[in-house]
Amino acid sequence: MSTDSDTTPDTEEAREQLIDLAADFYDQFADGEVPTMTIPTRTKSNIVFDEDEQVWVYGDRNSTRSAKTISGAEKILKAVYTIDFLSQQLEEDRSSTLRELYYLSESWDLDEAQFNTQDESNNLIEDLEIVSDVKREDFHMRPEESGAKVMGPLLLREQTNRGDREIHCQDDVGQGGYQIPNNPDTIEFLDNDAKFVLCVETGGMRDRLVENGFDDEYDALVVHLGGQPARATRRLIKRLHDELDLPVTVFTDGDPWSYRIFGSVSYGSIKSAHLSEYLATPEAQFIGIRPEDIVEYELPTDPLSDSDVNALESELEDPRFQTDFWEEQIELQLDINKKAEQQALASRGLDFVTETYLPERLDEMGIL
Amino acid sequence: MSTDSDTTPDTEEAREQLIDLAADFYDQFADGEVPTMTIPTRTKSNIVFDEDEQVWVYGDRNSTRSAKTISGAEKILKAVYTIDFLSQQLEEDRSSTLRELYYLSESWDLDEAQFNTQDESNNLIEDLEIVSDVKREDFHMRPEESGAKVMGPLLLREQTNRGDREIHCQDDVGQGGYQIPNNPDTIEFLDNDAKFVLCVETGGMRDRLVENGFDDEYDALVVHLGGQPARATRRLIKRLHDELDLPVTVFTDGDPWSYRIFGSVSYGSIKSAHLSEYLATPEAQFIGIRPEDIVEYELPTDPLSDSDVNALESELEDPRFQTDFWEEQIELQLDINKKAEQQALASRGLDFVTETYLPERLDEMGIL
Repeated sequence: MSTDSDTTPDTEEAREQLIDLAADFYDQFADGEVPTMTIPTRTKSNIVFDEDEQVWVYGDRNSTRSAKTISGAEKILKAVYTIDFLSQQLEEDRSSTLRELYYLSESWDLDEAQFNTQDESNNLIEDLEIVSDVKREDFHMRPEESGAKVMGPLLLREQTNRGDREIHCQDDVGQGGYQIPNNPDTIEFLDNDAKFVLCVETGGMRDRLVENGFDDEYDALVVHLGGQPARATRRLIKRLHDELDLPVTVFTDGDPWSYRIFGSVSYGSIKSAHLSEYLATPEAQFIGIRPEDIVEYELPTDPLSDSDVNALESELEDPRFQTDFWEEQIELQLDINKKAEQQALASRGLDFVTETYLPERLDEMGIL
Repeated sequence: MSTDSDTTPDTEEAREQLIDLAADFYDQFADGEVPTMTIPTRTKSNIVFDEDEQVWVYGDRNSTRSAKTISGAEKILKAVYTIDFLSQQLEEDRSSTLRELYYLSESWDLDEAQFNTQDESNNLIEDLEIVSDVKREDFHMRPEESGAKVMGPLLLREQTNRGDREIHCQDDVGQGGYQIPNNPDTIEFLDNDAKFVLCVETGGMRDRLVENGFDDEYDALVVHLGGQPARATRRLIKRLHDELDLPVTVFTDGDPWSYRIFGSVSYGSIKSAHLSEYLATPEAQFIGIRPEDIVEYELPTDPLSDSDVNALESELEDPRFQTDFWEEQIELQLDINKKAEQQALASRGLDFVTETYLPERLDEMGIL
């Protein structure tokens, strides 16, 4: 699972990092100390927005798990068993899901090492990511949810467990596009004619762009997000930006939940603040649907619900949305009290989005 | 969009069927009659289980929409505008989604022809499917949700709107597999070494089977369902069964909602009773997780919730589940008061499912 990206350690490195963790416990025992593990406190109050990097990161508060208490000792025991499992998994070049790890712990010989809930095993894996500075994918822990799909002028090579595959994301795929694998770091970018990345929230709009040949005409890599994007999708977008130097644009519905989808592509999420560097693309730009589009194009709308209004108001408090652009758009939306879907552009004809809306907007944004 | 399947009319036929409908209205006018449209009553009370075909079909009650009332006249008006749109779409060999149709109606010149809600346009398309005996896909109406993905020894040709693509669902795809297009009738099966179709509910289990090379070792076409399967996925499964003569098996979690997933693959759904012949595979067989598996393999479980119990009890009343097999399993499950996930098999090791559970079960079922 070696990759191009120099931030990604290879399997052997990941294994060594894990074993170093276990070795720390061993050394602590050998020195007559009670073993401890120190990790950043992972509550909302210890997550700060890094203005320079424009992503969420952990603050400087730490918590220490010590084997002095039974619950602390059990946590460390579980960590050691998990490290043993992961290290074996890496040695055999295999992989598993978070859910499998939870169930698998039932087969461990010591009852106290078994997980009681899936939250417990999920959290432990996140802890190990943070303390070892190795990502879950490099432990070969697959997410349950696979990534979405890509259509556009990109030739790639994917390392699969049955050999390498060279795939062109227009010429070698069906109408459904190229399916992003769980771990997109198995992908190597070979060649491309792309000018930018266009991330699309809904399947219906993705299909419209593909049917209208937008990817072909404008040399766009159309990446389907499918709602809140999976980790694999966000990682691929990040790599397309960093390694191929492509501008990233995001096209969603015009409501507060969709602005959060944009936020998770561009700023990372609170839950995975330790991975912002790996998953977030702060340079991503928002295409729309913008509240100003609702007004300008007289789109069919729905009224805002109470929860929409609350979400918009909390976005106004969110450091990620504290820019002139977002404040203006969100206040306009609260004022007109309306939201619109991407596909509402069809009220001006099926080709309006590809012939007028996107070319005009992308030109304004300096992408075309 | 011509296909192998002789049940699928081509574009020109679909267009003619639609125009015939409009011509009926014209003839009724010409004869001095008030135009009417008659369709089967689409309520639960008019849906019956066809014991011979083992699928849901409409009963013999009909409703008539007559232009005698304003609301009836508006319905017929909307039908005519929609027929005009669909007919033009077919002429131009284009396609659209149900949601686009709803929004697009805002651009129609007559206010009374525009849809007030998306339910209204969705229902009209279903009505047109029933009276014209042409499927939505043949009107080139795409679903919002695309199909899931396939991995296995199958070579196919897909007609895309940018030319034909020949794709082998193991050799030409990444770890994510072949993405089923919205309309799988654009696929032609060219060659295969498959012995059976294995439909899998969860992404985690699908990835486990692929990682363990189960498709390769057992010549299985692994079809990911991704929860309740999309229309495109069910259609593809049906075609794999009918055209390639492959047995179809379904592997899900062990709870009442998953038995419904099996039911939608095998018996069709009440909502799409007019499409059972096109979408349902009554010969599909259920692998598990069976309540007896929970007992036999001592799987990690969760207790049944109240809604689980209600769902199981209503399945006991459902004609589709009135077989000795299902009654025994459902009663056992109510008795042990437990449910288990597919991935709970990992409590016996990551390879248990591919080395023991599936080979033994498939052998018992006469598939291997």
